[in-house]
Amino acid sequence: MYINEEMYGLGSCRSVIRELFEYGKKRAMEVGRENVYDFSLGNPSIPAPDIVNETIRSLTQELDSLSLHGYTSAQGDQETRQAVADYLNKTHGTDFTADNFYMTMGAAASLSICFKALTCTPDDEIIVIAPFFPEYNVFIKAAGAKCVVVPADTENFQIRFDELSSRITKNTKAVVINSPNNPSGAVYSEDTIKKLASVLSEKSKEFGNPIFIIADEPYREIAYDVDVPFVTKYYDNTLVCYSYSKSLSLPGERIGWVLVPKAAESSDKLYAAVAGAGRALGYVCAPSMFQKVITKCIGNTGDVDAYRQNRDILYNGLTKIGYHCYKPEGAFYLFVKALEENSDAFSEKAKEEDILVVSATGFGCPGWVRISYCVDKNMIERSLPAFERLYKKYE
Amino acid sequence: MYINEEMYGLGSCRSVIRELFEYGKKRAMEVGRENVYDFSLGNPSIPAPDIVNETIRSLTQELDSLSLHGYTSAQGDQETRQAVADYLNKTHGTDFTADNFYMTMGAAASLSICFKALTCTPDDEIIVIAPFFPEYNVFIKAAGAKCVVVPADTENFQIRFDELSSRITKNTKAVVINSPNNPSGAVYSEDTIKKLASVLSEKSKEFGNPIFIIADEPYREIAYDVDVPFVTKYYDNTLVCYSYSKSLSLPGERIGWVLVPKAAESSDKLYAAVAGAGRALGYVCAPSMFQKVITKCIGNTGDVDAYRQNRDILYNGLTKIGYHCYKPEGAFYLFVKALEENSDAFSEKAKEEDILVVSATGFGCPGWVRISYCVDKNMIERSLPAFERLYKKYE
Repeated sequence: MYINEEMYGLGSCRSVIRELFEYGKKRAMEVGRENVYDFSLGNPSIPAPDIVNETIRSLTQELDSLSLHGYTSAQGDQETRQAVADYLNKTHGTDFTADNFYMTMGAAASLSICFKALTCTPDDEIIVIAPFFPEYNVFIKAAGAKCVVVPADTENFQIRFDELSSRITKNTKAVVINSPNNPSGAVYSEDTIKKLASVLSEKSKEFGNPIFIIADEPYREIAYDVDVPFVTKYYDNTLVCYSYSKSLSLPGERIGWVLVPKAAESSDKLYAAVAGAGRALGYVCAPSMFQKVITKCIGNTGDVDAYRQNRDILYNGLTKIGYHCYKPEGAFYLFVKALEENSDAFSEKAKEEDILVVSATGFGCPGWVRISYCVDKNMIERSLPAFERLYKKYE
Repeated sequence: MYINEEMYGLGSCRSVIRELFEYGKKRAMEVGRENVYDFSLGNPSIPAPDIVNETIRSLTQELDSLSLHGYTSAQGDQETRQAVADYLNKTHGTDFTADNFYMTMGAAASLSICFKALTCTPDDEIIVIAPFFPEYNVFIKAAGAKCVVVPADTENFQIRFDELSSRITKNTKAVVINSPNNPSGAVYSEDTIKKLASVLSEKSKEFGNPIFIIADEPYREIAYDVDVPFVTKYYDNTLVCYSYSKSLSLPGERIGWVLVPKAAESSDKLYAAVAGAGRALGYVCAPSMFQKVITKCIGNTGDVDAYRQNRDILYNGLTKIGYHCYKPEGAFYLFVKALEENSDAFSEKAKEEDILVVSATGFGCPGWVRISYCVDKNMIERSLPAFERLYKKYE
């Protein structure tokens, strides 16, 4: 074979989520779109705030073409990075500068860059905490490291510190956290972040190597009545990966950043390695016009309250029927215990009622399913009788 | 060290080109912008055609936010890929379909994807032909393969087939060609492409493995009175890497594609490996709005004639002084023989006249310098007396 088998595998096996989404489209043609309850994808359902398209239009009229569409420096426009620093400093009381930020093509790029910057040998390990976004596994492997999974705390969806501690070795480079979480909707409490910082400080000392937190935070702004602790305030060796995909509803535009705080060990060298990884991965620079859009639109979000309404209708509706759900504090996912041990089978059975929910096996949390409620509110309301019929089948 | 040293190296050593550009900015502050003749960067100097910004404005008014800014499928919008296929078929008499194209974040991404899709073992070799774009080396190494260099044909800047043949081994996976060429400005003739196809067919047979041509073609539309042969018509196992950075003057927006022709060996598997490589590299999807811009603007270009005028003024001016130049048939670079053997030293000496030209050592062609003429015409005219003074220093 003259083709890379691993790449072939990645390209030919569609993810479970995509598979389900395609099934939903087919099924909609058979029974009508209004009769299929597709909760498969995490594609934001609320539009970008108006200021985004207004800014795009005025940029195309005010800036000359070369400034608007030309290369930016690899690390991103100075002005954009300054705007990001200013916004975070104002919001979280931090003291970042433009030099702490490296603009990227969204969170997947930010994560891929961090994994590549930190991985030195094939023995290196990066820890993820179930339930976790399945592509972590792909990006960690692509960087040449091993992905080590900490099993889920299915009670509170915080961190099982006993399980975490036992998995940290001399090869551990980083622990990835994702709060608000996809797929559980949980937000890590300040207590959780403090404990995590303490465990990692101790273990870093024990092994004589810094162990990083990589905080994947695309859902930071989508939180309901809870604070999402800003991780760098609790632990110096933190890399934050951010994307505007969810907060500004721009998932297709691929724009985000990596934050390398000054307080991190060998911060300058680490920043250089981040830049080097971006170069090696072929990123060149983050999309130029959208960097300028971010400069103008930072601090805005789509209508997060629409997601909260969806959450309430769905959570209350399913709980009333009898489903066991974790009440999400953020993101736009509801995590529900399957009605049989095998959540893959449960997800299949749900299809009989034209309900499409993703089994969490791929998220490292079998026995649960993810319901993406970034959908039309009416669909949620219409789906509740179908969820009830599904429930009755198990009684 | 807990940071990847190679990534650190890539991030901390600025490229020679960037170094020179930064020097130029500093120098301009000292002696005035009009007194520095900066020919360092390959950043298009002509604006994007008006239709680009017009299309952007109307898309933001006509399309709903989710369709405009949402995820596209990983391979790219069906409509965009169809438009690309239709345009190429009309222009070159080919018969591609939408399914042959994988939309990417520009040529660097396209190349990184192809290298990764084809590389199976650390013994694998990818051949580049001097003079070549220095980042090839970075992307090939990042994919885990070895970069093998064929020395330059400094007569005609075609291919030295004796040197090429002797470098093809059982480990050769691909030969990268770049026509119109950065940095020489040469366009490969039909005869060169035919010979290349014949050599690679023979060698593929000899070693029992397909050897691919990877055609890096961002400058395809920037050609002066010559045909740029479309490589798939001469050799089935060709992957074409394209970007709209130069043709539409959108280098910062990162939009392009990979073409996997149906006629290529195991075409479907290869396409899947391309998609898998895109996934492993963290690309997710090409920027959504610019995919839609391409659908509407395909076939348009910036004012290529402006580059031709620049070429003529520069080529005629330097030749008249006495410089030995290769007359470019495409792209926006003039390749000039340095006035001493050591082109690094020559480039340094040029700085004394505030002329910034890039020594081609990094392009695998020491003894020559690259002059990027994607600059203001007036600067070229103003620079000629300085070039004359520089020439006299060597007399």
